Amino acid sequence: MRRHNLALVLREVVRAEPVSRAAIAGRTGLTRGTVSSLVEELLDAGLLDELAAERGAPGRPASPLQLNRSGPAGLGIEIEVDHVAACVVDLTGAVRAIARLASDHRDRDPALALARVAELARAVRAEAALPVVGAVVAVPGVVGADGVVVRAPNLPRWSGADVGPLLTPLLGGLPVTTANEADLAALAELWFADGPPDAMYVSGGVGVGAGIVLGGRLFRGAGGRAGELGHVVVDADGPACRCGGRGCLEQTAGLEALLRAAGAADLDALPDAPRAAAALDGAAAALGVALAGAVNLLDVPVVVLGGIYSRLGAAWCDDVHARLCERVVHRSDVAVRLSTLAPGGALRAAAASVVRARLRSP
Amino acid sequence: MRRHNLALVLREVVRAEPVSRAAIAGRTGLTRGTVSSLVEELLDAGLLDELAAERGAPGRPASPLQLNRSGPAGLGIEIEVDHVAACVVDLTGAVRAIARLASDHRDRDPALALARVAELARAVRAEAALPVVGAVVAVPGVVGADGVVVRAPNLPRWSGADVGPLLTPLLGGLPVTTANEADLAALAELWFADGPPDAMYVSGGVGVGAGIVLGGRLFRGAGGRAGELGHVVVDADGPACRCGGRGCLEQTAGLEALLRAAGAADLDALPDAPRAAAALDGAAAALGVALAGAVNLLDVPVVVLGGIYSRLGAAWCDDVHARLCERVVHRSDVAVRLSTLAPGGALRAAAASVVRARLRSP
Repeated sequence: MRRHNLALVLREVVRAEPVSRAAIAGRTGLTRGTVSSLVEELLDAGLLDELAAERGAPGRPASPLQLNRSGPAGLGIEIEVDHVAACVVDLTGAVRAIARLASDHRDRDPALALARVAELARAVRAEAALPVVGAVVAVPGVVGADGVVVRAPNLPRWSGADVGPLLTPLLGGLPVTTANEADLAALAELWFADGPPDAMYVSGGVGVGAGIVLGGRLFRGAGGRAGELGHVVVDADGPACRCGGRGCLEQTAGLEALLRAAGAADLDALPDAPRAAAALDGAAAALGVALAGAVNLLDVPVVVLGGIYSRLGAAWCDDVHARLCERVVHRSDVAVRLSTLAPGGALRAAAASVVRARLRSP
Repeated sequence: MRRHNLALVLREVVRAEPVSRAAIAGRTGLTRGTVSSLVEELLDAGLLDELAAERGAPGRPASPLQLNRSGPAGLGIEIEVDHVAACVVDLTGAVRAIARLASDHRDRDPALALARVAELARAVRAEAALPVVGAVVAVPGVVGADGVVVRAPNLPRWSGADVGPLLTPLLGGLPVTTANEADLAALAELWFADGPPDAMYVSGGVGVGAGIVLGGRLFRGAGGRAGELGHVVVDADGPACRCGGRGCLEQTAGLEALLRAAGAADLDALPDAPRAAAALDGAAAALGVALAGAVNLLDVPVVVLGGIYSRLGAAWCDDVHARLCERVVHRSDVAVRLSTLAPGGALRAAAASVVRARLRSP
């Protein structure tokens, strides 16, 4: 009960900091005495911080409360096909240190990436100088309910990797959780971009994944592996896919397929590539088919296109929307928009999930 | 609190009737005095029934409790393209009266079907002679969160129909709720066939719909319109569909498409039709594509094929499973089976949802 009330007080501070003890009592229905005692405990635990008392108001001066910017912090780690990154956020979710390192892992042993990650983590922790209490690792693969990487088609040597136990010793014993990159990016939209409570976030890259948020919570499916949008079939007789199927969305709208179709070496060269328009049109059509399936099945009202898709422009996004509307049953009720978060959304959400968990169960 | 405890007592009776007051106290942690007083209230409300006391045991004879077979009952109603049906279930969910009437509604005004439904309802209520407290209507269309039929492609004149207010006056003022047929059939699998807590039920007919159960609860999506499996695209350039799209699953695996492809007049004639094998194979392949998309997105471990599909045989079901496995990422973890419930599953679940709601909030 006391734990529940501690979380209740923290929730009020998160909602409208700085806030007085009296306001918290008013909003939670707890007595002022109870609130004072809970606040005392949260101050001792380093979760809250007291601002200077406001003078001038009648009566005893009140010291407003806010989250402690020097309190428990979260470490976020991102392992991608071509880079690793790390960041530290404070209790408010603000990024206090961030670092990124180009590093190709496609056919390398996970140990290499983990050593680099550990190095980056040391650097950002030193820079932030905050008490980091846990880490969440974003990986571009399917993560089972037990935290093991079930499949990472673009990082084949990571299949079966149990990142937590491998990484914890390299991070001085820090508890580590592993999560899917698209899932974290979906939470980033919700947390940092005022995203709607029901939405599908599409992470475009070499692979294409989706993070599904329903009722303000991540939807992970019975086995924790929901959101495999990249392997929804868009052309039953299409090209073979790494997953063993054929004609999957990734084979038309994944980064490599897109560049190949356009005749471009990389994303920067795409606008000037000889077949850019046709390739972008093909990707939009394929996304329209796959997204229509997803919207028909899940009835999500908003689709957010992120990763490489966020760089393809508003006109292309409108094209995806039009293609989707040709196929979806409730066409008047579905919006498609580009992610406005920087590519680091998943990384920041990884770090923020650590502190959010701490605030939920202090 | 008392309401909560009343529900708690009922839950224990449902779990293991007949059951003694002492056993209920033991399992709920409530005192024997509290249980006795709650049971008294439930006996008065007609929800519980006392069996004859068991003699022979030492001490005061105990009168075991069970759900009252003459207590509040539920009316289920089914409106289909080619028939209407009604049934009454008692508090245990047992069917106490059932009736079905062939009646084509495809291009008819809803008023006709509702008049027939009201007639059937009168007949089953008279036969069951139980105090019916509410009705749930299963319709083969999408039902919005407000209970209005949003779309019913095969009953075009039902779009926008608010069945509750239309039907209540015809049923003597009985409260009426409307629900999607596939959703109710999915609950029927869960409730009456020991179905798994995470599954997708596919209702094959003129239209193809899915009822999705996640964590033992119906998943309805943000707008209550999830599960439009029939309009998942299986052939991007395929035939135009009533929904406005093209190449939807229904256009290959819906009843009419299947019969047309086989050259059969109806389902009974299918086995002897000139092109039966090719048509069934095409339907299995199309279902494989659409179901793979659904399983990739939702990560449901079990697919139950019902409606007309339950009549197509085990070998055909295996074929669907094989086609699905060609396309799904986590192929080792997905099972496909035919529904073992009679076609009346949705009807019975409709009636049962009335009494289940009463038992949850007595």
